[in-house]
Amino acid sequence: MRSGVRCMAAVSSMECVKGVKGVILDMCGVLYDSGEGGGRPIQGSVEAVKRLMDSGLILRFCTNETQNTREKFVQKLRRMGFDISVSDVFSPAPALMRILRERGLQPHLLVHDDLIPEFDGIEMNSPNCVVIGDAADRFSYENLNEAFRVLIGLKKPILFSLGQGRYYKETDGLKLDVGVFMKALEYACDVQAEVVGKPSPEFFQSVLRDMNLQPHEVVMVGDDLVNDVGGAQRCGIKGVQVRTGKYRPSDEDHPSVKADAYVDDLAAAVDAILTQKH
Amino acid sequence: MRSGVRCMAAVSSMECVKGVKGVILDMCGVLYDSGEGGGRPIQGSVEAVKRLMDSGLILRFCTNETQNTREKFVQKLRRMGFDISVSDVFSPAPALMRILRERGLQPHLLVHDDLIPEFDGIEMNSPNCVVIGDAADRFSYENLNEAFRVLIGLKKPILFSLGQGRYYKETDGLKLDVGVFMKALEYACDVQAEVVGKPSPEFFQSVLRDMNLQPHEVVMVGDDLVNDVGGAQRCGIKGVQVRTGKYRPSDEDHPSVKADAYVDDLAAAVDAILTQKH
Repeated sequence: MRSGVRCMAAVSSMECVKGVKGVILDMCGVLYDSGEGGGRPIQGSVEAVKRLMDSGLILRFCTNETQNTREKFVQKLRRMGFDISVSDVFSPAPALMRILRERGLQPHLLVHDDLIPEFDGIEMNSPNCVVIGDAADRFSYENLNEAFRVLIGLKKPILFSLGQGRYYKETDGLKLDVGVFMKALEYACDVQAEVVGKPSPEFFQSVLRDMNLQPHEVVMVGDDLVNDVGGAQRCGIKGVQVRTGKYRPSDEDHPSVKADAYVDDLAAAVDAILTQKH
Repeated sequence: MRSGVRCMAAVSSMECVKGVKGVILDMCGVLYDSGEGGGRPIQGSVEAVKRLMDSGLILRFCTNETQNTREKFVQKLRRMGFDISVSDVFSPAPALMRILRERGLQPHLLVHDDLIPEFDGIEMNSPNCVVIGDAADRFSYENLNEAFRVLIGLKKPILFSLGQGRYYKETDGLKLDVGVFMKALEYACDVQAEVVGKPSPEFFQSVLRDMNLQPHEVVMVGDDLVNDVGGAQRCGIKGVQVRTGKYRPSDEDHPSVKADAYVDDLAAAVDAILTQKH
């Protein structure tokens, strides 16, 4: 049960969401906490998503998940009780597939085994770019050397990184994320990676196009201040940070990114959004 | 046999070495080329080193080698015919040992197995810094995570990197060097590594102290424009680049580093140094 006091406090600071027509939700840390067996829903989130869906607002989901195909990922969320469709979820690999096809590129993949089916149908015999995702244990010295040799052998090295996260928490401890290996290969080849996924503006813009809304009509709710909130704001989308997932109190004093509002969790954010709607 | 014409050309551009009292030589790419079975001497280098030793100039050797102890490394050079003593060779691991002792630090090591004996006698039970060297195959995802967790668990993370090279060539292809993993851990933990070895000014200064000479009295001869030549120049030492080892013609048009002279090889450098001496 939500206390009236907390709800009023949340509402009072949420003027920013007045009149929005659409909502983009980050997933891990907002809908659920990852962990053993795939994770578990954050309290109140299943119901909050349902209320948003019933409200008539346009709703999309946006994740940097690259350890699994979008289909498998949505199946996991559905098992947790979220009534989500694959077509409403934006993740880096399908976005990259469009880029590869548009630019006629053949990728050398250094990604998680379970992500590989996302690249079905793309030619890979003569790689002219390198794609890295959260490859986890596949980030071996041998595989990094192999990706490096492809890059350094290209006249103009092209490196795509599916996100730019530093690290994440699993049940057995902190793990290095894809951004760390992006920086490694950037230095090795003196190139700058093209980041696909949050916080890339192109990624948010593709979601906006799908929603058929203008940036100022949309609010992004996420737990990651830089990638969710800051990324959205750079596109003119309002950014709200929830105090769940990877949120840390120091985020509220960040030197360069300031959320339009901070709320305790997704349920509080939805309370406020629906209150301001009326 | 050296041609008179080439020798004269070398001499004419080597005014910079006039009156030097000491010489610092880089090793790999200047004395020898690495490769199968440990590598082989560059033509004329064994004799050139001998001539320098006989000349009365003060001579030291300076390497970023971290795949082996200094003792084992010198043994390899002696087998190639270079009459070198361990005490004349400066390499990152012994320099780091002095720093660790001075600052009372206990390292967590992510280095090549063959380098570990360099750290004999230092306490490592409660690591309060991380040391990375050219660990090669030991740069696994698991080992990188382990080093990262030590760093992120420290109140003030301290990361030492034994050199900052991007990559090097082995007989089976290009391999990522320690600098790449330094950049990875720097990004993961939002820290700046302390580089021990070339091009660190402290490293060159420790060599000067051992030679008991002033910077302007010394010339550094190396094949690496940034780490050998640029590093030496930042300390006031003259920097000469040889066109062997990792030298590339584009080095002579580098945007920020310009050698005081470029010569074909160590033999030509020694010709010029000894000519200017008289």
